[in-house]
Amino acid sequence: MGRVTERRRVIRIRDGAVSTRPDTLVAEEPMEIRLGGKPLAITMRTPGDDFALAAGFLVSEGVLASAAELANIVYCAGATGEGGSNTYNVVDVRLADGVPVPDITLERNVYTTSSCGLCGKASLDAVRTTARWPLDTSPDTPVRIEPATLSALPDRLRAAQRVFERTGGLHAAALFTTDGELLDIREDVGRHNAVDKIVGRALQQGRLPLSSCVLMVSGRASFELVQKAVMAGIPVLAAVSAPSSLAVDLAVETGLTLVGFLRGTSMNVYAGEHRLALSAAASTD
Amino acid sequence: MGRVTERRRVIRIRDGAVSTRPDTLVAEEPMEIRLGGKPLAITMRTPGDDFALAAGFLVSEGVLASAAELANIVYCAGATGEGGSNTYNVVDVRLADGVPVPDITLERNVYTTSSCGLCGKASLDAVRTTARWPLDTSPDTPVRIEPATLSALPDRLRAAQRVFERTGGLHAAALFTTDGELLDIREDVGRHNAVDKIVGRALQQGRLPLSSCVLMVSGRASFELVQKAVMAGIPVLAAVSAPSSLAVDLAVETGLTLVGFLRGTSMNVYAGEHRLALSAAASTD
Repeated sequence: MGRVTERRRVIRIRDGAVSTRPDTLVAEEPMEIRLGGKPLAITMRTPGDDFALAAGFLVSEGVLASAAELANIVYCAGATGEGGSNTYNVVDVRLADGVPVPDITLERNVYTTSSCGLCGKASLDAVRTTARWPLDTSPDTPVRIEPATLSALPDRLRAAQRVFERTGGLHAAALFTTDGELLDIREDVGRHNAVDKIVGRALQQGRLPLSSCVLMVSGRASFELVQKAVMAGIPVLAAVSAPSSLAVDLAVETGLTLVGFLRGTSMNVYAGEHRLALSAAASTD
Repeated sequence: MGRVTERRRVIRIRDGAVSTRPDTLVAEEPMEIRLGGKPLAITMRTPGDDFALAAGFLVSEGVLASAAELANIVYCAGATGEGGSNTYNVVDVRLADGVPVPDITLERNVYTTSSCGLCGKASLDAVRTTARWPLDTSPDTPVRIEPATLSALPDRLRAAQRVFERTGGLHAAALFTTDGELLDIREDVGRHNAVDKIVGRALQQGRLPLSSCVLMVSGRASFELVQKAVMAGIPVLAAVSAPSSLAVDLAVETGLTLVGFLRGTSMNVYAGEHRLALSAAASTD
C-alpha cells in the first residue's frame, strides 16, 4: 500500500541505439469508495492519502462538509487479494450519527438526473444546489489576489512536484494562500484525485471551507475540477492550460475566479475577475 | 448538438496589459449511455460522434464486438432540457436479438468486483477474460513496425489535430497503419472518449478487430487506455508521455506493444518489443 512509484524494465531507443534498463513509473491501482458499506465509486488512483481521497470525493459530491460529519474511514478487512492479504484498495466511509446518507447514484463524479434531459445546465444546477458555502465569507469584501502572485504559482507547483521529476507521469494539484504561500500539494495519475486528496486533507484538519485559498492544477480545467473547487469553498482556480466551455459556465454561475493558460506573466481570466487586482481598466479590442 | 467549440468572453493579461476579447473553448457536455434503456454510465465529453462513443465504450467493456451485434443507437426522445427540446446528451444502445445483455455494474470504466479484493491483478484478469480477440491474427507472424515509422506519428497526429489549434484544450487519439498512414483521428476533452470514438467508428464500419493498426494518444498511457486498445484488438499503443505501472502490467499480460515518451527519434518500449524491428540486440547497462 501507499507505493507512489514502481520499477519496471524498459527498452530505450535513442537515435537508433537500443538499451535495456529499469525505469521508474507512477503507480496506478483501482480504489473502491464505499459509503456505509455500499459501493459508490471506483477510481484509478496513485496509492497514498486514500482516506483523504475518499473524504475529498464525498465533499465534491456534497455528502460531507466537515470532520464532525465523518465517523471514520477504514480499509475493508474483507477486501483481500491473492494470498489473503488486504489489498488496501477498498475503503469504507461511515458518516456520523444523524448525518443523512444521500440516495444518490454517482457515475464519473456526476449526478445522474434521469428525470430530466441531461445537459450542461442541469450539471450546473446540481452543483449550485448542493454547494454548502458561498465562495466569499463576506460578499462585500471578496478575496483579492495580485496577478503577479498568480504568475509565481506554476514554478512553485513544479518545484514541489517530487514524483513527476522521476516519472513524468503525474498530475499535480496545489493549494496556496492568496499571498502565494504553498499550503499543500498532492500528485496522482488522475488530476481529479489530486484535488480530492487536497480537499480531503483539509476536511480532516477542520480547514473547510477553503475560502482564502487558491487551487492550482498542472493541466487543463474541466467541469469536474471547477465543481470540486466550488464544493470545497475555494474562490480561485488557476490552471496551466485551457478550460472547457462547461468549466467556464460553472465558474460564471457560481462566481468562482477561473484563470487558464497561466504561463510566465500571461494568463487568461474566464470568470470572477473582481477578485484580481487589475490596475488598468480592461480595454476591448 | 455536435458543437465542438464554443465562444466565451475572456480577459487577457499579458505583461500587465489587460484586454477583453472573445475566446474559443473546447465544448464539454455530459453524455449518458444507456443499454436497452438502462443507464450504464455518464461521461463528460466533447459533443460529436456520440453514437461511435457509445459503441466504442461498449467494445471497451466487452459488450460489443461487431456491428452485427448492434441493433441500433438512438438519442432518447424523452431527454429534453429547458424549453422541451432534445438535449442530444442521452443515447440508448439496443443490442441485436440474441446478444446477451451483461449484468454488469460499470463505474469509471472498471468492472466492480465486489466478491474479491479489488486490486491491480483483478483488473488485469477482468480485461484478459473479456477480450474477444488475440492481438495477432496469426501468433507466429506478429505485426512488425519500424521505430522510424513510430517516430513520424506524433507530428502527423499534431498536424491532423484541428480543434487543438484553436483551443489548446483537447486530447487526441489517432489510428495508423503499421506503415504510418493515418486512418482516423478524434479529439475530445477526455482522452478515453477520443479512443472510444475511434473504436466505435471502426465497429460501425465493420473493421474490428483492428489487428494491423497502431493507436497513438496525445498524452499519457493509463490502464484504461491499454484496456481499450486490447479490447479493440489493437496490437500497438504509442503515447507521447509516460505510462503508469498498471498500464505496463496489462500490456505485458496481454502481449500489447506499449511505447511511451515517443518524441523525435527517442522512445521507451515497455512491453511487446517483439513487434518492433530492432536492428541491434538490446544491450543492458
